[in-house]
Amino acid sequence: MPTNRQIHLDNRPEGEASLSNFKLVTVETPALQDNQVLVRHHYMSLDPYMRGRMNDSKSYTANQPTGAVFQGGTVGEVVESKHPKFQAGDKVVGFGGWQEYSVVDAAVPGSLKKVDTTHVPLSHYLGAVGMPGVTAWYGLVKIIAPKAGETVVVTAASGAVGSAFGALAKARGCRVVGIAGGPDKCRYVTEELGFDACIDYRQHPDVKSMSAALKEACPQGIDGYFENVGGYIFDAVLLRCNAFARIALCGMIAGYDGAPLPLANPALFLINRIKLEGFIVSEHMEVWPEALAELGALVASGKLKPRESVAQGIEAAPEAFLGLLKGKNFGKQLVKLI
Amino acid sequence: MPTNRQIHLDNRPEGEASLSNFKLVTVETPALQDNQVLVRHHYMSLDPYMRGRMNDSKSYTANQPTGAVFQGGTVGEVVESKHPKFQAGDKVVGFGGWQEYSVVDAAVPGSLKKVDTTHVPLSHYLGAVGMPGVTAWYGLVKIIAPKAGETVVVTAASGAVGSAFGALAKARGCRVVGIAGGPDKCRYVTEELGFDACIDYRQHPDVKSMSAALKEACPQGIDGYFENVGGYIFDAVLLRCNAFARIALCGMIAGYDGAPLPLANPALFLINRIKLEGFIVSEHMEVWPEALAELGALVASGKLKPRESVAQGIEAAPEAFLGLLKGKNFGKQLVKLI
Repeated sequence: MPTNRQIHLDNRPEGEASLSNFKLVTVETPALQDNQVLVRHHYMSLDPYMRGRMNDSKSYTANQPTGAVFQGGTVGEVVESKHPKFQAGDKVVGFGGWQEYSVVDAAVPGSLKKVDTTHVPLSHYLGAVGMPGVTAWYGLVKIIAPKAGETVVVTAASGAVGSAFGALAKARGCRVVGIAGGPDKCRYVTEELGFDACIDYRQHPDVKSMSAALKEACPQGIDGYFENVGGYIFDAVLLRCNAFARIALCGMIAGYDGAPLPLANPALFLINRIKLEGFIVSEHMEVWPEALAELGALVASGKLKPRESVAQGIEAAPEAFLGLLKGKNFGKQLVKLI
Repeated sequence: MPTNRQIHLDNRPEGEASLSNFKLVTVETPALQDNQVLVRHHYMSLDPYMRGRMNDSKSYTANQPTGAVFQGGTVGEVVESKHPKFQAGDKVVGFGGWQEYSVVDAAVPGSLKKVDTTHVPLSHYLGAVGMPGVTAWYGLVKIIAPKAGETVVVTAASGAVGSAFGALAKARGCRVVGIAGGPDKCRYVTEELGFDACIDYRQHPDVKSMSAALKEACPQGIDGYFENVGGYIFDAVLLRCNAFARIALCGMIAGYDGAPLPLANPALFLINRIKLEGFIVSEHMEVWPEALAELGALVASGKLKPRESVAQGIEAAPEAFLGLLKGKNFGKQLVKLI
């Protein structure tokens, strides 16, 4: 059996996460038992939610154990199978974690899924046609539920969730406004992704300035907001929300390190009769087939052109992950293993 | 025609509201025109939402104009009518404002409604069987939508909204926990209103202490919260919310004077996948008949025993109102005019 390199969570961060929280470990892959499948990972997914799982405190997912493989989504190819439904050469998506190989009990429902790479590149099953895409779909379709002509706003617009959100909202006739960091990302958001406008938060580093930029980009106000970030951007968006605005809350990356970020004026929820809902897409598996079908069609038709940031090799994962938390990635952050 | 004493909003508060914002004015009631009805007010309603309307800034209702009668709900008796549907002696509920008499154009839909005082005292149409009661009903039934056995929490539990909320939630098999100020109110909430527990916020003046009290009163966590107050109590409740808790937001009285009160940790909405919705009951007139029928039955059967704080005479209204904002009332705050 092949040698397998893994990244473990070695210890939990105090405040900001750092490279010293992780450890590279080399093990042998075990011999397969009945129903098990050996998968060689081609790409690993790096996602902001992972930062929350590094803490010991209550989070919206279970904690990541220390001294164990760092958990996360993976795509790859079956190398060997003792399960009748899988064969060597099958392309699969799973939750194999930060390692080069995983041994999966394929009898567990949802543990491994074959995917078709004819029209959709394998890596996109970790992004636009995977968990981030479905996250955008759920927030837009099930919580914001926009009417054509309404204005919707998304933070981290050039990322995996934001780019999918934009394509899905444009398909529903919305005015779509993104928020992203830096002129390159903003240009990509409007020119490649087809957003109507994109605000560079680095040019608008406080509530007043961001609120003014939103006013200009959203002349009819904001009807729907997909919240990924938290902090002063959330405060500024609340100031521009129309009556009966809907807010889908799926991340608050700005508050993952250290102290919680407050919300300046929650009375605005009342003043504008806003509905806010926090969600985790893994709790809504019933929508995945419908969402993935729409997302796959958008990618196959070229209406959604997801961008990827690819780090090379298992040992590059921790640094790439820390960069993601600081917005250094441009598009979906992946680690390529072969 | 009779002389009519009125309270006007003379000028807007800077920070805390004070007696000097109001002015007593005496006028003559004009002769009636076609479709008009002259109503002598028996009771005026004082409600927390009125504080928001005193400001010039954007609020969740239109601003109260200065130099004009302070607006608000009233019950009374028809003195004279030029509208075919109303006769002298009819008991009516309306929005006559802070004055002894009002002249109402009864042709305007919803401007004046006859009420039956056989089983429900006239004053209760400003409280349990009026706007505050329907507010509790909407938040509980349409937003929190509790299952039997769930735990729900309401602030200002001894007030008009809170007491109705408790009776409605008990009727649905919930564990109901109130928050109120002082031992007398807490005793009334458990002994007279039938709540399962009541927390005295004066004994728990910070997040940590309130959170501990909530843990004890809500051993199964909090599934639904009716938010009237804002501030540290909201923060503490969020710490005790179960996954998929629902929050109905209908007032943030603690922030009405002066600077907005922040929310310490909005990431908890995500961590616990909470749904929050702000609402104003006057925008949901379609639920009023169903809600008033249930509330009227609860009062008539003695299952809801609303308590009233009654100030005497038009000139007492401003001071009673300022007391209401500080929680000095005990039950629904009214002004009795005859």
